[in-house]
Amino acid sequence: MAFEVTILGNSSASPTPNRHPSGQYVSICDHYLLIDCGEGTQMQLQKYKIKKSKISQIYITHVHGDHILGLPGLILSMNLMKHDKPLHVYGPKELFDILDVFFKHSNTEFCFPLHYHALDTEKPAIIFENLYYSVKTFPLFHRIPTVGFLFEEHSILKKLNAVACQKLKIPFTHFNDIKMGKDYISPEGKVTLNELLTFPSTRPLSYAYCSDTIYDERVIQAIHEADYLYHEATFMHDKLDRAIQTMHTTSKQAGMVAKKANVNKLIIGHFSSRYEDLSQLLTEAQTEFENTELAEEGRTFIIE
Amino acid sequence: MAFEVTILGNSSASPTPNRHPSGQYVSICDHYLLIDCGEGTQMQLQKYKIKKSKISQIYITHVHGDHILGLPGLILSMNLMKHDKPLHVYGPKELFDILDVFFKHSNTEFCFPLHYHALDTEKPAIIFENLYYSVKTFPLFHRIPTVGFLFEEHSILKKLNAVACQKLKIPFTHFNDIKMGKDYISPEGKVTLNELLTFPSTRPLSYAYCSDTIYDERVIQAIHEADYLYHEATFMHDKLDRAIQTMHTTSKQAGMVAKKANVNKLIIGHFSSRYEDLSQLLTEAQTEFENTELAEEGRTFIIE
Repeated sequence: MAFEVTILGNSSASPTPNRHPSGQYVSICDHYLLIDCGEGTQMQLQKYKIKKSKISQIYITHVHGDHILGLPGLILSMNLMKHDKPLHVYGPKELFDILDVFFKHSNTEFCFPLHYHALDTEKPAIIFENLYYSVKTFPLFHRIPTVGFLFEEHSILKKLNAVACQKLKIPFTHFNDIKMGKDYISPEGKVTLNELLTFPSTRPLSYAYCSDTIYDERVIQAIHEADYLYHEATFMHDKLDRAIQTMHTTSKQAGMVAKKANVNKLIIGHFSSRYEDLSQLLTEAQTEFENTELAEEGRTFIIE
Repeated sequence: MAFEVTILGNSSASPTPNRHPSGQYVSICDHYLLIDCGEGTQMQLQKYKIKKSKISQIYITHVHGDHILGLPGLILSMNLMKHDKPLHVYGPKELFDILDVFFKHSNTEFCFPLHYHALDTEKPAIIFENLYYSVKTFPLFHRIPTVGFLFEEHSILKKLNAVACQKLKIPFTHFNDIKMGKDYISPEGKVTLNELLTFPSTRPLSYAYCSDTIYDERVIQAIHEADYLYHEATFMHDKLDRAIQTMHTTSKQAGMVAKKANVNKLIIGHFSSRYEDLSQLLTEAQTEFENTELAEEGRTFIIE
């Protein structure tokens, strides 16, 4: 039950054939989520052998095209594939206007429950919570209403003793209960005590997602001590004027945010198409925060 | 001044990483057009080294996602690239509702004139005409209002004598005038008679585009004796029930349309993602109409 993030796109508004607009696939506590959904996200999921059918929640930061234009097509494809589980979409209320007009005119009838959750983009909120993790929003500072997301495991979970579970051939459908502290009862009625199947609770992990935003220290409180931080780094710092004008962050500033927020690792992305060689953006961020990596497409980060 | 069609996508509603939704790039009489604009079209244009900035007209058949979901992103990218010429978009009126809601909420300010042309989807019409070519619509028969397009050169044009023009170093900006029958006057005032720079008028060529539609012989009159016909062939004929249910055409039926319309060549496309090997669709269409080819992505057909 790894907490993982796979990068589907690392481009800012102008994609290239090899760099796609924003999209990330997240697995957390056996739930599968998408953050942002730029044009081509459904093809990227296929390219990286990720099943669309697993996705149950989609989190959208704002309604600029490079963050949403893959969403109608993804939902349509799930519908064509006879998706049969609820799909929850979280985003600014304007998103649902856009989806509704398209689905109305394209005369789309859904074979699964599609739930819209309009976000308050002006103040922090907990927008999803179950026994295992929660999702919080916080305002970002961009040209239109935009939120960041913080995905946090709950401390309640014990760490699974995978070897012991495998030896007893315990079906994975019981793993969440076991991590919650329950004993395992086999179909024959034999009880195995929870302490034989788990290790003590691990420190809960968290992942913060900040895109798109101008550099603004008000963000730091919301993401303080996140384990992994994804932060946009659209420009090199010599384009600071352009970053301010378009309300984006430079690579150096992304490093400053990571340092001030005291996160464990920084992943930078949302790169302007002017940069063919991304290593310069990495090097610049590392001058401020050494433990930085590039959001390379197809790469999976295990949050640990 | 070739009349050419480049295939950008040949997939039906569910794309794959190697097969994209509908999109074709057409050059006709020095004008550059797009027909349909599925998700990923802007990346496909880049992949095949086609400059977005050349496009002045976009023709949309209907507002199903696989024909329009690349359009907002393409227009945004043209805007970001500071496109500075008018862009004309032709499509069913519902298309403009969809675009307007998105551009409103994403707070898009255009740096070029974007003109919408709402089409009557119920009866044939001439929707564009200049000295060199015209564009006609005709109804197709699908689940929502849908039109086909017929692109026709005018017979007025003479064929350029490229060798003679090159010898006299005549700038290409004069070529259209010369093809219209005008003499060439050099900057020094020297007149070259038109008959020395041209060959007699060639037969005007035409290209018909039919996607999406159920097999319906009412289409045949509109596309009769077109030189090239692109026709959807979503399914093999053993899936005729499914074709009828979803209002699509089988490969065999596409061949029947080509035969009855007495066209010169048939290009089939809009293939269901269930077909990994497209040769079976080609073979089936060829049983009805031998001069059929597959709409392979990246392939350019020279209409001649």
